[in-house]
Amino acid sequence: MLEKIKGPEDLKKLNPQERQELIDEMRKAMLERASVHMGHVGPDLGIVEATVALHTVFDSPKDKIVYDVSHQSYPHKMLTGRMQAYTDPAHYNDVSGYTNPDESEHDFFNVGHTSTSISLASGLAKARDLQGGKENIIAVIGDGSLSGGMAFGGLDTVGELGTNFIVVFNDNDMSIAENHGGMYKGIKKLRETNGQAADNLFRAFGLDYRFVADGNDVEALIRAFEEVRDIDHPVVVHIVTQKGKGYAPAEKNKEDWHWHMPFDLATGEVREPYTDRYGEATAAFLLQQMKKDPKLVAMTAAVPMVMGFTPERRKEAGSQYIDVGIAEEQAVSMASGLAKGGMHPVFASYATFFQRTYDQLFQDVCVNRNPATFLVFGASMYSMNDVTHLCFYDIPLLSNIPNLVYLAPATLEEYKAMLGWAIAQETHPVAIRVPVPVYENGSLYPVKAEKDYRELNRFAVTHKGSQVALLGAGNFYGLAEQTAKDLQSRGIDATVINPRYLTGLDTELLEELRKDHTVVATMEDGCLAGGFGEKIASYYGKTDMRILNFGIPKAFYDRYDYARLAEENHLTPQLAAEDILALL
Amino acid sequence: MLEKIKGPEDLKKLNPQERQELIDEMRKAMLERASVHMGHVGPDLGIVEATVALHTVFDSPKDKIVYDVSHQSYPHKMLTGRMQAYTDPAHYNDVSGYTNPDESEHDFFNVGHTSTSISLASGLAKARDLQGGKENIIAVIGDGSLSGGMAFGGLDTVGELGTNFIVVFNDNDMSIAENHGGMYKGIKKLRETNGQAADNLFRAFGLDYRFVADGNDVEALIRAFEEVRDIDHPVVVHIVTQKGKGYAPAEKNKEDWHWHMPFDLATGEVREPYTDRYGEATAAFLLQQMKKDPKLVAMTAAVPMVMGFTPERRKEAGSQYIDVGIAEEQAVSMASGLAKGGMHPVFASYATFFQRTYDQLFQDVCVNRNPATFLVFGASMYSMNDVTHLCFYDIPLLSNIPNLVYLAPATLEEYKAMLGWAIAQETHPVAIRVPVPVYENGSLYPVKAEKDYRELNRFAVTHKGSQVALLGAGNFYGLAEQTAKDLQSRGIDATVINPRYLTGLDTELLEELRKDHTVVATMEDGCLAGGFGEKIASYYGKTDMRILNFGIPKAFYDRYDYARLAEENHLTPQLAAEDILALL
Repeated sequence: MLEKIKGPEDLKKLNPQERQELIDEMRKAMLERASVHMGHVGPDLGIVEATVALHTVFDSPKDKIVYDVSHQSYPHKMLTGRMQAYTDPAHYNDVSGYTNPDESEHDFFNVGHTSTSISLASGLAKARDLQGGKENIIAVIGDGSLSGGMAFGGLDTVGELGTNFIVVFNDNDMSIAENHGGMYKGIKKLRETNGQAADNLFRAFGLDYRFVADGNDVEALIRAFEEVRDIDHPVVVHIVTQKGKGYAPAEKNKEDWHWHMPFDLATGEVREPYTDRYGEATAAFLLQQMKKDPKLVAMTAAVPMVMGFTPERRKEAGSQYIDVGIAEEQAVSMASGLAKGGMHPVFASYATFFQRTYDQLFQDVCVNRNPATFLVFGASMYSMNDVTHLCFYDIPLLSNIPNLVYLAPATLEEYKAMLGWAIAQETHPVAIRVPVPVYENGSLYPVKAEKDYRELNRFAVTHKGSQVALLGAGNFYGLAEQTAKDLQSRGIDATVINPRYLTGLDTELLEELRKDHTVVATMEDGCLAGGFGEKIASYYGKTDMRILNFGIPKAFYDRYDYARLAEENHLTPQLAAEDILALL
Repeated sequence: MLEKIKGPEDLKKLNPQERQELIDEMRKAMLERASVHMGHVGPDLGIVEATVALHTVFDSPKDKIVYDVSHQSYPHKMLTGRMQAYTDPAHYNDVSGYTNPDESEHDFFNVGHTSTSISLASGLAKARDLQGGKENIIAVIGDGSLSGGMAFGGLDTVGELGTNFIVVFNDNDMSIAENHGGMYKGIKKLRETNGQAADNLFRAFGLDYRFVADGNDVEALIRAFEEVRDIDHPVVVHIVTQKGKGYAPAEKNKEDWHWHMPFDLATGEVREPYTDRYGEATAAFLLQQMKKDPKLVAMTAAVPMVMGFTPERRKEAGSQYIDVGIAEEQAVSMASGLAKGGMHPVFASYATFFQRTYDQLFQDVCVNRNPATFLVFGASMYSMNDVTHLCFYDIPLLSNIPNLVYLAPATLEEYKAMLGWAIAQETHPVAIRVPVPVYENGSLYPVKAEKDYRELNRFAVTHKGSQVALLGAGNFYGLAEQTAKDLQSRGIDATVINPRYLTGLDTELLEELRKDHTVVATMEDGCLAGGFGEKIASYYGKTDMRILNFGIPKAFYDRYDYARLAEENHLTPQLAAEDILALL
């Protein structure tokens, strides 16, 4: 069946029995692929029928379907000319995990952050109206992504549009973890009343509303979509689906199977179990501290696992744990309120998602100098490498906000010491760049964890040499160490420095270096533009000190090769040492 | 009456007649102050009764009232120990225009951006619950600020809270301009049905609901607030108020009187009419272009006047004008969708509000390279000087986003040329730093407007000298010119350069300068950290070129004196010239 589907047009000829065969084969292929290729599992298993129904009823790419987050677009990709990437292991890497206009004319945006589909599609709809077009504009949102405030900004605009707009709300009663938020009480009532309950959220925003009780019944979905095709006003089709549908382990443990590493298809056992040491250490530390400090509150925006908060640990933390759903803005401003109220809030997320919170950090937290703690996970070039999830723009983002103290620990011990200090103090908003351990095994010049970090912007000299000084920030402290080792083998005894603070300069130390150093090299595991090294260069601008800034040039990189990106930018001990030698 | 009110406790003794006297006197005092002191007018006139009622019923600061945007906090300040700042012209400057914890224990946050009150207060509420407190937590939101998506993220969290939380929704049927969005249809129905209409937005988020038809009836408000005082679950009190209440010109022209310059109290005539040349030029240009280019769409998030879009011009633009309400995130992602749909969208706002859109610009616009145009108004140290509205953090914010072209025109002609190019091209997302004319009258070395700007990152040499090169970006091109003049009088013929692009370096030119220059000075009207000058310093780090970066150090500044800030940072021709000479 799968081989017959070259594009959506082939779907339109199928009878119900063939459709069901196709759906079964799609699930099987997706599961086989998932068993050897990491990626999203449960969200895509749940939306197979809806995707088949959408492409049966609508006429893509004339009709435009925009997927929120687009982590649920695997079935869409299978049906729009990219089947091979799901059936042939040799081609598994042909497609990205998100919609991508470079791959297909059926994809309209490259997206990976949540709650933007209605906003993006509202632009397509307005463009259609201004050009007198008649196509359907469809936004598919759900699986937790409706809770981001921005989705309501989108609904509000669309509710005023007065022309064709179709929101498919995929309600699987889940976020990445369980759903959170007052609106889900109303959504539950809608499910329980076949869509008849009072105080309909979507109608409140001015949209029409339809309900499909079984969103895994492809024939019912086709009927519902046919009913709204070419509708002349905005409408929500609320479909109730089962996350993980068709694979027992994923149906049972929905959170575990939201995104998954390769696994044994028969048992569901993961092939190479992986636990992030830093996530584990964070959870252990926070849970231990909570017992001593009733003011400590651990916060997440739907990604509790990043800081090791398993369901059991969430239970253990009890009321000292808050999940606001996928709504990072809300989390950050709520953290400011908690700190103002005397609490010690700690909000953790991935670096890429902190991008949504710039203004909340700037205004609500830092203008107010409320002492909340932010744990920035995965901030490294050795992290998620989809263009939509790049995690190395955090230094330009955070280090230029006044009043924020952004710390870059180099080791697990230093991380724990900084975390302990950040929580206990009540003077500064503090963000911590949680290490991604790449160079951690250097330990040539050990890093000392301090009792506290209140004396801001004091860089630590871990080895005093001369001529060359290497400032290796956080993850790249180890790179600085190894570069020093390489230089040593060439007769240079370089000074090695762990800057620790990314939000200010140790000008005393920088002046001191001028006495017996001629080259300062900075190393940061992040984007150079707007980052740490440029500040050092600016500081020494008036002097004859030679400066080299190692890091990643400002650009978008998609599914890049880690080693190649490092080589290209001389982020290896040998290449860095050679650049430095050339300046001596 | 006003003299008797030293704090909220004095309110509690008043009888209805005294209350009304107080209200009348408060309005009178606010109007007198407004007539000589710029600030918000209509929003505060409308909320006098509600504020008196709140402080009569609740026990501030034990009960905590958080004002959204806090531009409606003037009556609150009057009643909480700061009366003199509204009655005595010698003390008008004692208070800021927003809530400020440094001023009073009755103020909990320093805020000036919208839609954050519920989120901030949700943190206070959770802090109370964890500490076993019993106080009331109240968020006052409205006057357009409910439409920011983040407010719904807040409502969603609060709807799950299960404890005391009171949202006062101040519905004056206005934003800064008229309200926009589908939800206002539902709000209108609630007004028309005495709060009984179906599909109640607030109940949809899990909150209880009360309605007060006349939100300028202080006795009715007191009854409503008494009913919800100490309530054990979250509730919205929807009050319908009149913006500009009690002053005929403000009641009539609500948009004009949202914020106002000093005026004649008898007639409402503004004392010194002011029109921003750049706003006017933008509106004129866009309206003219729209006639030729049906794809051109002008967009705002509730501040149409920033780009000169008066009500008449909005009408003239018709369907080519979009106001999404106060929801900048929605506007930016919608712009990406419009561009993808073949339109030429232009979104204008103040620099400070672009801070809310970092992730939307990064992901939705720039990852997708959709050619939308963004006009960044007021981006200068010579702009709004409240700490909550600083407009000089835009270069760190925008210039480090890949794929974005951030242009800094130095003159009106160059601005118009860049705007024309940005709209016509379909290759790059483009942001333009609309000039704030401070040094515009220099014209020593005139700036040439180009036919187009497609050859990216080409800096323009306006005068070729030697020894010293001055790179004056945008607003500070004139400062560079005048510094050159000063240097000339001291025998130095400095090269003057208009960099034009803030998102990339003209490395060819920078190399060329090495031949006969020893000092390069950058001048930017913005924060140095993460900005333009640091990139030049980093570029020259390996060389013996001496670099001086002129700009504003990273910090928060509140109601600062423009001339003093300039002096302190040597942002005057003479002081800059002296620093440069010291390096020769």
